[in-house]
Amino acid sequence: MMEQSSIIVDATPGLSKSYFDCLDIADLQTAYPIGEAFMTTYRGMSQDELRARQERQFASVMSFAWRVPFYQRLWADRGIEPGDICSLDDLGKLPTYSKDDLMQSVERSPPIGDFHGLDTYADNERPPLILQTTSGTTGRPQPLLCGPKSREVQAMLLARVYALQGMHNRDVVHSVYGHGMVNGGHYVREAITHWIGALLLSAGTGIETRSVQQVQLLHDFRATVIVGFADYIAKLARLARELGFEPGVDLPMRMISCHLGAQSREAMSSAWGGAKVYDWYGVGDTGTIATEGPDQDGLYLMEDAQFIELLDVTSGAVVGEAQSADIVCTSLYKDDVFPIIRFNTHDVTRICSGTNSIDLPFRRMAGFLGRSDNMVKLRGVNVFPQGIGAILSAAFESATGEFVCRTSSADGRDEMLVLVEVNEQGAAQKTVLQLAMQDALKARLGVAINVQLVAPGATAPLTGIEARQKPIRLIDERHA
Amino acid sequence: MMEQSSIIVDATPGLSKSYFDCLDIADLQTAYPIGEAFMTTYRGMSQDELRARQERQFASVMSFAWRVPFYQRLWADRGIEPGDICSLDDLGKLPTYSKDDLMQSVERSPPIGDFHGLDTYADNERPPLILQTTSGTTGRPQPLLCGPKSREVQAMLLARVYALQGMHNRDVVHSVYGHGMVNGGHYVREAITHWIGALLLSAGTGIETRSVQQVQLLHDFRATVIVGFADYIAKLARLARELGFEPGVDLPMRMISCHLGAQSREAMSSAWGGAKVYDWYGVGDTGTIATEGPDQDGLYLMEDAQFIELLDVTSGAVVGEAQSADIVCTSLYKDDVFPIIRFNTHDVTRICSGTNSIDLPFRRMAGFLGRSDNMVKLRGVNVFPQGIGAILSAAFESATGEFVCRTSSADGRDEMLVLVEVNEQGAAQKTVLQLAMQDALKARLGVAINVQLVAPGATAPLTGIEARQKPIRLIDERHA
Repeated sequence: MMEQSSIIVDATPGLSKSYFDCLDIADLQTAYPIGEAFMTTYRGMSQDELRARQERQFASVMSFAWRVPFYQRLWADRGIEPGDICSLDDLGKLPTYSKDDLMQSVERSPPIGDFHGLDTYADNERPPLILQTTSGTTGRPQPLLCGPKSREVQAMLLARVYALQGMHNRDVVHSVYGHGMVNGGHYVREAITHWIGALLLSAGTGIETRSVQQVQLLHDFRATVIVGFADYIAKLARLARELGFEPGVDLPMRMISCHLGAQSREAMSSAWGGAKVYDWYGVGDTGTIATEGPDQDGLYLMEDAQFIELLDVTSGAVVGEAQSADIVCTSLYKDDVFPIIRFNTHDVTRICSGTNSIDLPFRRMAGFLGRSDNMVKLRGVNVFPQGIGAILSAAFESATGEFVCRTSSADGRDEMLVLVEVNEQGAAQKTVLQLAMQDALKARLGVAINVQLVAPGATAPLTGIEARQKPIRLIDERHA
Repeated sequence: MMEQSSIIVDATPGLSKSYFDCLDIADLQTAYPIGEAFMTTYRGMSQDELRARQERQFASVMSFAWRVPFYQRLWADRGIEPGDICSLDDLGKLPTYSKDDLMQSVERSPPIGDFHGLDTYADNERPPLILQTTSGTTGRPQPLLCGPKSREVQAMLLARVYALQGMHNRDVVHSVYGHGMVNGGHYVREAITHWIGALLLSAGTGIETRSVQQVQLLHDFRATVIVGFADYIAKLARLARELGFEPGVDLPMRMISCHLGAQSREAMSSAWGGAKVYDWYGVGDTGTIATEGPDQDGLYLMEDAQFIELLDVTSGAVVGEAQSADIVCTSLYKDDVFPIIRFNTHDVTRICSGTNSIDLPFRRMAGFLGRSDNMVKLRGVNVFPQGIGAILSAAFESATGEFVCRTSSADGRDEMLVLVEVNEQGAAQKTVLQLAMQDALKARLGVAINVQLVAPGATAPLTGIEARQKPIRLIDERHA
């Protein structure tokens, strides 16, 4: 009856080395410092010293990756040999790959693909595998694979983000990241519980803890920080007001740490009674990539742990400063399970110019500007649907921030219609507002987009905001 | 704007000692061994040696508890002084308390009560607080409080349970315990990820991962073990068959570790194609209390970590072997946050007589027999609603195991009606079956109970089985 699982396992059943016995905590604390130790280590560090750190780690990751079937295939197909890659200077010789390639690997070797590298370990030396998945925003959920070391470093890097933004052990932190198979909630829980020592309310999504209960929790525990995806955090502020709580007075929120993208920082801050709003950016596979610091002047790339390239969306060439491009990540810390070398996130950003005020040796990026694989080419113009909400919320007070884009084709012409939630207005005002929004989008994006105003909550069934980590912002019906 | 939170915090904001720096892992592994080390340590241990271990831990827990306001109040009210309690022999001098007392403490000192003991620590010596809640089966969710040490020992004790039942690092374990604020999912995740090294699928409840997706996960990952509440695990088996999978063939399940209570072990095993079914018992506050071993001959009390008394439901007196009584727990390992001394779980069991076959020095209990605070006194007879499902499933093949009890009063007489889900039957057969079930309940419980047959799934809106960790089995409308 029992068939052998296709997951690589030890020959003799027993207990693995414990999670703790797989970690050298003191060593990790030196390599990936958090809080004051982070600033002490990196403030004023020279580019040469940073590069030397990166090269040491890169060598370890490469040596692992050469033994992993996924990379052997990816690289051998292009005739690349180990001797070709001697340092990070040679990185450009290796091809990039994306989630699609990982999903193909899963198809080929279900259920976890052949990119994990567990088969490179001797029996009984194998680290336990920690599996979560993506939320499946852009299709079928993808397995996210770590060993204890890479899992814990991800938690440390996120704790570093939060500490840099000012979170501390006196905070009561309310997390709206989901749990279950999805990584987010578990990852945030480990970061805060293991490394910050704040009191965590692991509320999760609106289906794990009903939104009304979440507002009650925020109130009862006097939460000082909310972390999660911006859309749901904004929704909680609206609900809190409906329930008679005044954010900033009854809910004295100090700080929001989220993923801004489509939302306006000012609208989020004002919705939460003046809380400081911080942005950070990461990917399920790689962990944290960049974060705003106390200066709120761009997102510092965590270049001691992630080697980041900005590559042209079409040509794949390295772009100049200030040009929008794909974020391509090589994770320097991930040398236990699933090495990540030139993973194209297909998230778009640009590098900020100038020097930073807190004297870190890291480049800064502008934040998440959209997805290159979700980009809509509308009559020759590149439109990133996630960006449309921010444009409208920033310019129109009555826009709640909730929206969804629908594209369609008729007579060979592509059209985009944006359903925009607005607070109640008279019919005459509505017409004026609708036209003004259409003008604003045309002026900003250089292409005509239709707007339809809808009541608050009306887009929820389309965006799935109650149930999903990341709401759907584009319904593409051009080829339906 | 910012008011001081009522949660005890350090004076200076910063980072707490890390979770890891609060733990002495080697020391904990010696104190609470898992797997082979558990059997090596305890097999053949004398009662005197066990008692000596318990006394050392009890002294530490008592010394902590005397400084905790909740216990100071509870004990001072009865004129008890520290000198009165010199050893476990004196335990009976202390009052028991229950969840109600903890909830009153929360009312008095919201949001986490005054039973945590964080105020006994010097500033900057305080361990970070780990908060989850109960699922709120019996009312408002209750805060569950641990520090890193007590949290990790809870994970270790649960890992010990699973290892004793045969779970190992080659297993793929599917967990249907919920996450969010609720403790279950997080707790199980830590036990398996930190200490077993099995591949964990942290699916969660049917609202975290839809039931159809759960069946797909079981299949795609070739899960070998399912852990969770029995009701939902049974539901997954029914759904798997509906979806065309044959448990035991397409889903080669090796082991189920759950909380049997109302369910029949045979029905569960047969639903999962002959998987071995194990029971264990624990409470949110205390962690694991008892588990079946490989002998499946009662549940071994984890007496190296929990000191267990069986007290009469009405009088509170210690009962003799084989008498049903309340489980009252003193957690010997919990000396960092929220000491637990004589906590009345109001769960009912009895102690098994005779010696055990694997030579452990621990007593064995019969499993969860019902809740004393949910007990219905029906015309002089004690009825535990959770037990009714097991009686019916064991005797009637067409009963799916799903049911709900409704009590009502009319003309001063209390009645109970059980809605029982059965697989489809003709009208004539139904009448026969209904009467047969009524006879079986009368014979077993000694009091007449009405039965109404309903279609599969019909009780779900009343029990909340899709959304709740523990389905509702009693709707008490006697005083409505």
